[in-house]
Order: sequence, then C-alpha cells, then structure tokens
Amino acid sequence: MGLAQTNPVVGDFIYNQEQILALCDKAHRSELDLVIFGELALCGYPLGDLSYRQDVVVASERSLSSLAEQSIRFPGLTILVGHVSLAKNKRDPRQSADAIAHNSASFIRDGKILGTYHKKRLPNYDVFDDWRNFIPGDSNLIVEIKGSKVGVAICEDIWDPKISSSEFFNKQSVDLIAVLNGSPYTRNKQETRIRVASEFAQGTAIAYVNLCGGQDELVFDGGSFMLESRGHKILESGMETGLNSDTIRPVAESEHKTLWQVLVTGLRDYLNKTGQSKVILGLSGGIDSALCAAIASEAIGSENVLGVALPSRYSSAHSISDAKAVAKSLGIEYREISIEGPHAAFEKELALSDLAKENIQARIRAVILMGISNSEGYLLLSTGNKSEVAVGYSTIYGDSAGGFAPIKDVFKTDVWALSRWLNRSSGKELIPENSISKAPSAELRPGQVDQDSLPDYEVLDQVLKHLIEEVRSIDEIVTLGFDRELIERIDQMVRNAEWKRSQGAIGTKTTEVSFGKGRRVPLTTRFRTA
Amino acid sequence: MGLAQTNPVVGDFIYNQEQILALCDKAHRSELDLVIFGELALCGYPLGDLSYRQDVVVASERSLSSLAEQSIRFPGLTILVGHVSLAKNKRDPRQSADAIAHNSASFIRDGKILGTYHKKRLPNYDVFDDWRNFIPGDSNLIVEIKGSKVGVAICEDIWDPKISSSEFFNKQSVDLIAVLNGSPYTRNKQETRIRVASEFAQGTAIAYVNLCGGQDELVFDGGSFMLESRGHKILESGMETGLNSDTIRPVAESEHKTLWQVLVTGLRDYLNKTGQSKVILGLSGGIDSALCAAIASEAIGSENVLGVALPSRYSSAHSISDAKAVAKSLGIEYREISIEGPHAAFEKELALSDLAKENIQARIRAVILMGISNSEGYLLLSTGNKSEVAVGYSTIYGDSAGGFAPIKDVFKTDVWALSRWLNRSSGKELIPENSISKAPSAELRPGQVDQDSLPDYEVLDQVLKHLIEEVRSIDEIVTLGFDRELIERIDQMVRNAEWKRSQGAIGTKTTEVSFGKGRRVPLTTRFRTA
Repeated sequence: MGLAQTNPVVGDFIYNQEQILALCDKAHRSELDLVIFGELALCGYPLGDLSYRQDVVVASERSLSSLAEQSIRFPGLTILVGHVSLAKNKRDPRQSADAIAHNSASFIRDGKILGTYHKKRLPNYDVFDDWRNFIPGDSNLIVEIKGSKVGVAICEDIWDPKISSSEFFNKQSVDLIAVLNGSPYTRNKQETRIRVASEFAQGTAIAYVNLCGGQDELVFDGGSFMLESRGHKILESGMETGLNSDTIRPVAESEHKTLWQVLVTGLRDYLNKTGQSKVILGLSGGIDSALCAAIASEAIGSENVLGVALPSRYSSAHSISDAKAVAKSLGIEYREISIEGPHAAFEKELALSDLAKENIQARIRAVILMGISNSEGYLLLSTGNKSEVAVGYSTIYGDSAGGFAPIKDVFKTDVWALSRWLNRSSGKELIPENSISKAPSAELRPGQVDQDSLPDYEVLDQVLKHLIEEVRSIDEIVTLGFDRELIERIDQMVRNAEWKRSQGAIGTKTTEVSFGKGRRVPLTTRFRTA
Repeated sequence: MGLAQTNPVVGDFIYNQEQILALCDKAHRSELDLVIFGELALCGYPLGDLSYRQDVVVASERSLSSLAEQSIRFPGLTILVGHVSLAKNKRDPRQSADAIAHNSASFIRDGKILGTYHKKRLPNYDVFDDWRNFIPGDSNLIVEIKGSKVGVAICEDIWDPKISSSEFFNKQSVDLIAVLNGSPYTRNKQETRIRVASEFAQGTAIAYVNLCGGQDELVFDGGSFMLESRGHKILESGMETGLNSDTIRPVAESEHKTLWQVLVTGLRDYLNKTGQSKVILGLSGGIDSALCAAIASEAIGSENVLGVALPSRYSSAHSISDAKAVAKSLGIEYREISIEGPHAAFEKELALSDLAKENIQARIRAVILMGISNSEGYLLLSTGNKSEVAVGYSTIYGDSAGGFAPIKDVFKTDVWALSRWLNRSSGKELIPENSISKAPSAELRPGQVDQDSLPDYEVLDQVLKHLIEEVRSIDEIVTLGFDRELIERIDQMVRNAEWKRSQGAIGTKTTEVSFGKGRRVPLTTRFRTA
C-alpha cells in the first residue's frame, strides 16, 4: 500500500493528474495493491468559491474519468484519489444555492470507478470554508481490495467523534481506513494528527495521507503516516512529494527545521505556481530582511534574489555593512540606492509631522523597490514579522508593500531563534551575528530603536499570543502576571492596525491564528475587551 | 406597532442601547404596543469572529438584562430586539468548537424577558459567515401581546421555504410575524425582500425590520415594511434611523438616488464609526475622483474634504482646470502639488521600463497624499471604480492606496450615469460636464487614454457583469454575442489582478458580487474558464 503525496495547483487538472499518474506508475512497478492520494489531489485545495463554478466541477469530473481510463495501464492497482463532483444529493437546507459540489474521493481500478465517497464533515472555521463551498455527503463507503475491506474518510471526518464513521467501520470489520487530507501546517500539529487518527481507528489499521506544498497562505506539510491495528506507527513521510517509500521521515525533525522548511516551501510554491521566478527585497541590515533573504535563497536559488540597501541620512554604518554581509553570505545580488534625492525632493513639497517624516522614508523605499520590481520582473517581498504586523509597527505602502510576506506569521522572538538555528545548522554565519544581536531599529530618525515605541519583544510576543491565538480577555492575561496597562496598550495597538492588515500581503501561516483568511474581524468595531 | 430602525456600531453596547431606548421611548409616547428592532441591533452585525469571544457574548447578555430593567419605563410596551446569547443548545456536530453563541431575538416587557428565539437558518455565502460564527436554534417562538399572537423570525429564516417556520405560524394562527433583519443593500433588492416576506407570511400580517447604516463594506439600507394579511404594503420606511412613522418612504425612489444615498452612508459611517472626520483625495480632473469628492462632501460636509491636484509633466491643461472646477463647485479645500521634483529625483536613481515609468507617478502621488494624511489626520480615499478594480487598471501602492474606496463596487458606466443624475437632481454642475464627457485617461504618458489598454467601457462592463456577478463561462458569454478573444482577454486581466485586489481598500458593496469578503477566490490558481 502506498501513501502518495502530491503538490497540486488549484485548477490545473492536467498538471495535477500528471503527478498522480507518475506515482500510480511507481506504485504499480512496486507491485502495490493500493495507492492513496490526498484530499482534492486532482483539483487542488482549497478551491474557495471556484467550487461554485459549474465549469470547474465539470473539468474535475472529466479529469477523473480520464484518470480512470488511464488506470488500465496499472492492472490490479486500486487508486484512491480526492476530487470535486457535482452533487446529486440534496443540499442541506441551511446551505446556500451557490454550493453545487461535493468534496469527494473515488476508488479507481482497471479502468473503472469502483465507488465515490463524499466528505461528511465540512470544516468552517479558521481558514476553512468547506461548509460555504461544498455540500456534505451522507453515506459511508467500503471497497474490497484483494480480499481486504477498505473504508474511506476525508480529513475533518475523523476529527469529530459525533459523526464519525468509526463505529460503522468497526461493525463492518474493515481491515484498513484510508483518510485523505488537506491539512495545512501549524506548529506541532503532527502529534495531534496521529492521536486523532489513532482514536478514530479504534484498533483498525489507518492510513493518513496529506497533500504537500504551498497554496497561497497555506503550506500542506505532508507527514502522511500509517498506523497498524495496535496503533503503532509503521510509516511516516516527510514534507516532500512522492510515495511513502521515497520520503520516509527518518527521525523526528526539530521544530525549527520544520518551520524553516515550511517557510521555504510557502514562498517557493507561491512563486512557482503563479509563474514568478525572482524576488527583490530591501535589506535594512536587520534580522527580518536577512532571514527573508535566506528563505528566498533556499526557495529559488540565491541567483534569483536581489537585495537592495536603501540608505537614508539616518542609516547607521552598520546597517549598510550588515546588509552587504548578508548579501555576501547568501551569494545574492546586491544593490545600493540612496533615498536622499527623492527624500529631499518630497521635503521641498511637503511640511510633514514627525510621524509622517518617518513614514515617507519607508514609502520612498517602496517606490524604488516596486520600480525595480515592475521594470525587471521581480516579486517584492515584505519582510515584516508577526509582532510588527500585530501592533501595526510598519508603514502601509512602505515596508508593508510586497506580493508575499514570508515571515508575517513568525513572532520576532521566533525570528531570532530561527536565525540562530539556521546559522548553527548550516555551520555558517548565513545571517550576520550582528543582525541577530543588535537592538532592532527602523532607523527612521536619529538613534531610534523599536523599544522606544514597543515593549520588549519577549513580553510583547507573550501578550500577543494570549490575545490573538488564545483569544484571552485582558482580565485573564492580568492573572497570568502581566501589567494591565501594558496589555491594554498592546490590545489597542492590535485593534488600530486592523485596517492596515486588511491591506497586507499574504504570507505563510505557521500558527493556529494567523493574520489572514483564518481571522475575520470587523475593521469597524468599538468593542474593547476587559 | 413600530418598526424601529437603528444604526448600531459593532461591539458598542452602550451606544446601541441608547438608540434602542430612545425609540422605545418614542414608541411608548405614541402608545404603541410593540416595537421591533433589527437583527443584532444590540451588538451590531456582522460581528465576524468577535462572536467567538466569551467577553463579547457576556457583554451582550448584560446589555440585554440592562435593557430589560429599563423597560419598566415603558409600561405595557413589548420590545423585540436582536442580540447574541451564549448557546445552551448543543452545537451542530458539523460546526467548529469556536462557535459559542446564538444569533437571537428577545421579547421584553415591563422589566422581563418574555422569551428568546435563536436564528435557525445561518447564511454562509457571499459576505455572510453566520454558520461559521453562530450556533443555529431549533425551536419556534410565539408571544402574546395584548391578545394577539406574534411569531418571530430572523432574516435568513424567511428565505428558505424548506425550514421555514411559516407552516408552524400558520397552524398556530398567529396574528403577526415579526422578522428582524440585517440585510445589506444591493441594487434592486427591496422588491425581492417584499416578495419573500409575502411568500413566507402566507396570508398572515408580517413586519420586516432592517438595520440602517454602514458597517465596513456593507450598508444596511433600512426599508422596513409591513404587509397586512392580504399582502398589501401598509408601511415602508426609508434608509434613515427612526420609527416607521418618521421615515416613511413617500414614493419609490429612483435607483440612482438610492445608490447615491448608499454610497454616502457607507463612507459617512465608516468615518464616524472609526472616529475619523476628514478625508483627502487626489483630484485628477477625471470623473471618478470628482464623484468621490461629491460623495465625501455629502457625507461629512465639504469643509472636511481636501482635494489635491498632483500634476505631472504629462498632465493636460484641462486636468488641472477640471480638478479646480470640481473643488469649486463642491466648495472643498483645494491644493496643487507638482510631482515633478520627486519624479525627477527618482528618475535620477532608477532606470525604469515604460510601465514602471507610469506606475512611479501614481506612487509618488500616493506618497504625497499619505504624507498629508499622516501629518494632518485625513483619511485617504482611493477613487478607483469597479471596472478598473476588476481588470487591475490601477497602480498598487499608487492610486489604489487609501483607507476607503467609495466607488470600488460601481462600474464605470454607472459612474457616468450617477454623475449625470447628480448634476440633474441637484440642478447644478457639481461634477464638471467636461469630466463626464472627456475620454478617460490616467495621463501617465503623453496622449494616453484608457481605451489604449481597455475595451470600450460599455462592452467591458457587460462582460465583467457576466463573468463576475453571473459567474458565466466564456462559452456562455460568447453565445450572448461577445467576441471570444475579447472575453478571454478580460478574464485574464481579472485573474491577474487578484493579488492586487487582495490588498485593496474596503469600499461599499452595491452589487451581488463585490470585490470584498463576499468573493473568496485563491490568488494561486491555474484554472481557466472555457
């Protein structure tokens, strides 16, 4: 039996089918009886409102038929693959008329579709809109493969005991439960997946197959696994595409290594899948832009990364030398463009407040970077981290400008930790030690450091985690030992930055609550937590 | 009986309750027996993920208790009001653990809560995330008021015959069905509301009460009405807050007048509710910025609007004279700042492609406008129309910059029509005739006009409507008589602009499918319609 991890592109049926056929071929040559693919492997996930389109659903059905026809090349091999299908079931009366499709999985063998199952539990929280986009199924499916009974479930189906098919599979004494997943990475999620699968299996062998690769803000981190009937793990894949045998995870990876791979994958796949090959970013000499440059170099090769230092009259000597150092250590192209000319020209036209004087420098940099981006075909990276994005410590249309924000869901304290890990594990000072150890500064006025306006990042990040990821009230956070006034100040900053975030670039989700489509709060609200 | 339209602010329980009490007082002084408010009038709608917060739900329950206590001031008056409440019901097994609250409505009289109903049908399409955010109710409620039986429903409840309480109300011979709504404006929706209410009522009198005012991208357009048992309309409110008697709609409004009022309300309430009082916008001499300036003047007074002409070396004489003319006709402050200095300064630093040379001018303008915005406390308006936003005919971080985009959901052809209507109905040339009649141009290179890069707006807007609002395939649109190559080109432009739109400012929704939270498509997709 094979766990087949593919990296689909939403809506690219030909490309997705090619990946599937290649792994079917491999499974067949390895004389496997069954090969299992991830959720919606044929069309990509999540489809969003594309699932409302009749032409998308029809294209998926055609692609499934074509896959079935081609399966005669692999006699005896059963293929279990995820796809969308036009719903014949009635819509749940509480759903919209826009929903026309199921999130399905079909068993295919010897040119025929043996049976099709429709996902029953449609997640509708965090980044998931399945209940919006799909019609739920209402029946179970078991297929016999070489004398063994195989039951099927899709992702969220196994996360809720209340509607689980678990009991049914148990009664029917199935030999294997096959679960197709589109489960995006968040930190330390793999343990939970294994526990949930084991609980669902109730003593039956279970195969959990995930997708791979980035899709907008999500990274599907593979990690497909197989538990035998006593719940022991007998197989666990890494993050890459391939059949289980190719990608078996040797030992537990460190959390930082996984995070690094996820950030690299998120950026790489966004670029690859949207047909872009080069990135540009401003190098401030600070750690955020250095880490983003490192991620980009790993993702698409340092020859495709352009770092631009944009010194102003307030730039310190070390900001240029550190920017140069990171460009050198990574081997990326480096340019230096002074912003003084445009800066002076704007000052001549405008009488600005102190804050506006700071912002204008960040915006001049964005104009220059976007100018090069537009002229030479680079995608601009926005290098802000989650702590900054949370409290709005950025200039909109300035440093927040960009097509992708690789570390927008990584707290500053984690940026430091990840950078140290990177230097340690690569055995080189890829991120200059000085960029890691110096006090963070936007350098928009003489002698400025972040901690003029922000609490220490150690404290800030903890309070932000409590406010955003754990959705705690200020009262609760006070009981955890933080100063009330400080929490209120941070809470206020988070609220004030809502409109800025609503215009922010997408970036890879790494935590349970990221600033992206998984967090939907009004811009206009006067509610204050207490 | 009173239909009470309020304009709540999400999460501002004190402010919302004050409005409710004021109309209760009025209803009491008019010796009414029953006063009905809109959906979630106590907490504001939509709450988004704020509904996950225990503290928000508890605050709503406290506010309801306080309202009940204060109702003793209005002896004999029954108050029906919308609010959220902590769910005691079990969650639907297909829902997330994040959902903790019902979308509810309570009858209050003489200091007591007589009964509470929970919305059963939770819309989860377009801009609505009710199924994500709320737990559905499962029972009906009828309350006796002075010998009459009154049944209650909330908004979507009456839109689906399959789960309607209509039959139940009929069997129980209720005398009146009271429906609380949070129904946002889209063009020509009022007729549909009346038809749906009439079908639901099945020969019972029905009172339909809507909210008023703007909330982020939505405008609740009031229009509360009452149908007597034969289905005849005996009352219809306008868009304003107040009791039915104050706001009765005299005759059918013209579609343009309603659209105008909606656009004005959307901008006014976004500013008011987020504590902002002044706006700035670039005046190009074109029709889009002129219409936005007119909307802003009507919304917050012309004394709070600053128009800035930002001429470049490519600006024609008429662009300055038309900009001046609109500032004069509207009576707004006018400034003129040449972009030549910064333009030349950037050119000295950068060798740019032709397209980048155009974009940089738009970005210099944004830097100047944001500089003034930051220094003097103006909110920047982005003046793009729906046709431009759809095909990406704009410069990101340039003319797309802004905190609010008043006409982002108004097609160019409607911008013309609305401007002509405005001049006609005001009896003045508020929008200079030359801005209406001249060929649209971004003036980013000598002699440029929009139709160098775009099809005629008459054709473009029709194809866009078919593609976006009607979600038709290219094949279908061809059968409607449009050129295939042209449709494909437009479709491609729409797709290529997805990432730009994802970073766009919010703006008032006026159509069934607007670019906002009601349209959720991946940035990364290779699906092409056929």
